[in-house]
Amino acid sequence: MNRLYICHMSNVSIPKGTRDFGPEVMRKRNYLFAVIRNAFIQYGFEPLETPAMENIETLTGKYGDEGDKLMFRILNNGEILEKAKSSETNNALIKNVSEKALRYDLTIPFARYVAMNRGTLAFPFRRYQMQAVWRADRPQKGRFREFYQCDADIVGSNALLNEAELIALYLDVFRTLNLNVEIRLNNRKILAGLANCIGAADRLTDMTILIDKLDKIELSGVMQELEKAAFTAEQCEKIQAYLSISGDWKTQLTRLREIGLASDEMVAKGIAEFEEVMTLYRLMVGNNDGIVLDLTLARGLNYYTGTIIEVKAKDVAMGSIGGGGRYDDLTGIFGFPNMSGVGISFGLDRIYAVMDELNLFPQEVVSATKVLLIQFGGIAESVCLNAIRQLRLNGIPAEIYPSAEKIKKQMEYANKKQIPFVVLIGDEEVAQSKLILKNMQSGDQQLLTLEEMIQALKN
Amino acid sequence: MNRLYICHMSNVSIPKGTRDFGPEVMRKRNYLFAVIRNAFIQYGFEPLETPAMENIETLTGKYGDEGDKLMFRILNNGEILEKAKSSETNNALIKNVSEKALRYDLTIPFARYVAMNRGTLAFPFRRYQMQAVWRADRPQKGRFREFYQCDADIVGSNALLNEAELIALYLDVFRTLNLNVEIRLNNRKILAGLANCIGAADRLTDMTILIDKLDKIELSGVMQELEKAAFTAEQCEKIQAYLSISGDWKTQLTRLREIGLASDEMVAKGIAEFEEVMTLYRLMVGNNDGIVLDLTLARGLNYYTGTIIEVKAKDVAMGSIGGGGRYDDLTGIFGFPNMSGVGISFGLDRIYAVMDELNLFPQEVVSATKVLLIQFGGIAESVCLNAIRQLRLNGIPAEIYPSAEKIKKQMEYANKKQIPFVVLIGDEEVAQSKLILKNMQSGDQQLLTLEEMIQALKN
Repeated sequence: MNRLYICHMSNVSIPKGTRDFGPEVMRKRNYLFAVIRNAFIQYGFEPLETPAMENIETLTGKYGDEGDKLMFRILNNGEILEKAKSSETNNALIKNVSEKALRYDLTIPFARYVAMNRGTLAFPFRRYQMQAVWRADRPQKGRFREFYQCDADIVGSNALLNEAELIALYLDVFRTLNLNVEIRLNNRKILAGLANCIGAADRLTDMTILIDKLDKIELSGVMQELEKAAFTAEQCEKIQAYLSISGDWKTQLTRLREIGLASDEMVAKGIAEFEEVMTLYRLMVGNNDGIVLDLTLARGLNYYTGTIIEVKAKDVAMGSIGGGGRYDDLTGIFGFPNMSGVGISFGLDRIYAVMDELNLFPQEVVSATKVLLIQFGGIAESVCLNAIRQLRLNGIPAEIYPSAEKIKKQMEYANKKQIPFVVLIGDEEVAQSKLILKNMQSGDQQLLTLEEMIQALKN
Repeated sequence: MNRLYICHMSNVSIPKGTRDFGPEVMRKRNYLFAVIRNAFIQYGFEPLETPAMENIETLTGKYGDEGDKLMFRILNNGEILEKAKSSETNNALIKNVSEKALRYDLTIPFARYVAMNRGTLAFPFRRYQMQAVWRADRPQKGRFREFYQCDADIVGSNALLNEAELIALYLDVFRTLNLNVEIRLNNRKILAGLANCIGAADRLTDMTILIDKLDKIELSGVMQELEKAAFTAEQCEKIQAYLSISGDWKTQLTRLREIGLASDEMVAKGIAEFEEVMTLYRLMVGNNDGIVLDLTLARGLNYYTGTIIEVKAKDVAMGSIGGGGRYDDLTGIFGFPNMSGVGISFGLDRIYAVMDELNLFPQEVVSATKVLLIQFGGIAESVCLNAIRQLRLNGIPAEIYPSAEKIKKQMEYANKKQIPFVVLIGDEEVAQSKLILKNMQSGDQQLLTLEEMIQALKN
């Protein structure tokens, strides 16, 4: 590669925080999408896609000040100079020249869709949605400005069977992916009850935000931050006792009762809900394997009101690869109140990273094309052209090199694309009505009829 | 619906020219995507996805002035007031406050990707890409501001076998969809040669743009416009003779020779290319059924240099539902010259419209869930929960109503979602270890064991 070329090409780039997904990565991503989509369908979820851009009123104020700042806004088309010139502040300017923004998550567009279509949807409405979202976050390792979310939600039903189904769906997907996971459950009512018990009901959000940091700063760190946030010594002591509860879920529930928390009505309700979810799941699947109670699980999002769920990969250090929970009023902001719902999300980029690290993608995902027909030109070409047709009619992804280049070049192409087999048809083979099937990995060659080759490649 | 509600909900909307795709539409769209993707894979095309936003330098100037105007631009994040205030013109303002724009098509991002990854790709590079694009066009019936393109291209090979393969791919897809189509072919070299012959080589683009209107304004209209565009009477006469050629492709080629056009070197080359594509296709598929030569086919895009392709649905009045062609230098603009390529595109929205009008979507696409288990609560619930698990383990998309509501309500849910079967398990059935499978369309009921039901639903 010469210098000139490098200089020239360095002008071409993509926006920071975004990615091209080339063939190998796409095949793996498509495999994940297919496994997840298939599970969604098995469980009766309906597909939904919403536009990449939403009216600004739909999005602003829904994700906090931070969210409003991190939204990608679309510039209005046409003449905007005057409006820009007359704007007094940066915020006014943005408002004056932009009426739309890119989707920031899938939840608000979903809520907007449900509110707009409340008259025609079948409730409980089970929908899945797998689309890109955009955030103008500072790009860093594992954090992108464009990324996919894969969500499934059930709205219009407060039955706890929905929670049990979503947990089963999680476990089905990760079993299909051969990924060893742990499902962590908690219930926001237990945390709310804890806040009640320590006389800090009005500080539930502050408390859960700090508890949420447990993974990063450990118990001692959380205790320090609680103190800094002016929780009293007595309050801290009770929170510490709560966060120190350990053991299997039955032991933990016993301990919750021992330290007196379960006498709080809210805590009792949270415990009852958790136990019912476990029972329904067990009745469905036969056991509670892979599910743990994690009383320290808080999940940042404020709108959760009941069950909260988080999925962790077991064999690799990685944050959660999925999460979700129960919310009581998703669509109220769009004029359709009291719709209880529960949803889960798959963290596609993280699942991809874990699968890749553990080498869990199936071999057939690496290359799609199974066989390349080498071109020698001349009379063999028509035999090749018939052969490629028969292969494809038999469902075998096949390519023919488009021109009779040097065999070395054609072989290199097969190697580069990791195509496992090539077919060689020279004049001699044409005379015999046979062809040579070569295994690119072992180097083995077989002289076969077309029929025999199709059978060999079908297996 | 009361007035208050209408008023309130009318505030919620989506940007004009964009669409929500609800369950039924999405299932049909996903079916089309799956059929097209499967064909792409069968033919050895590799998946690619590029970011929704590109740097503005990548996009501007590539689609003409019109394209630059219709691009959706992303507002820069952060402080932009000062830059906006100091902008003298509308264009300067836009430049100063926006560095990125949304993808306008898939071709330029593809060319950019190939140029950036030229060192690692296996050439000829066959890629497919199915992603949304955005254009700030005035929305009207059938024209949207967000729509999907489905493209397949082969770059780095000028072999005409590629053309033959893409035509075969088109016909395979439309055969799978049961959609009756005609593939129209022409060759830009024939049109270029015509321009040569009439001494208007420098006006090829003007001429093809007017010829392209033939579908809308007929021959007389085209002739009027040519005159208006200052083509001489002699030129018009020759163009008219050309556009009036009819008959099957062999007759048309004979006529081309008769009127003296084939003596032009460029025309002769175009004819030879067309004939070779037909021959290669016939060697591969066995016939040339469904393919016609349409000498009036021009296709607007300037960058085509050889074969041009267009697909028309036969049983319904609709513009082209697919198109493509050969181009000689796609990636030159990104510093990687002389890459010949050929590509095709599927018009998803139009294919959808035709399929819907002709009622061609398969029945299983209408509803995904095959069976709903009705909940009676009590002891039957645990039997239901086991049954739903067994159904899903056997690959049957199944739902259980999440709570023991009135049967009427649960039945309505099944009807609204068009679920073809429901299962009823009451105390009596539990005692017999049986269940009732009800066909929602015929009303037929069968008393079956769980095993028997699974077998019945698998078929």
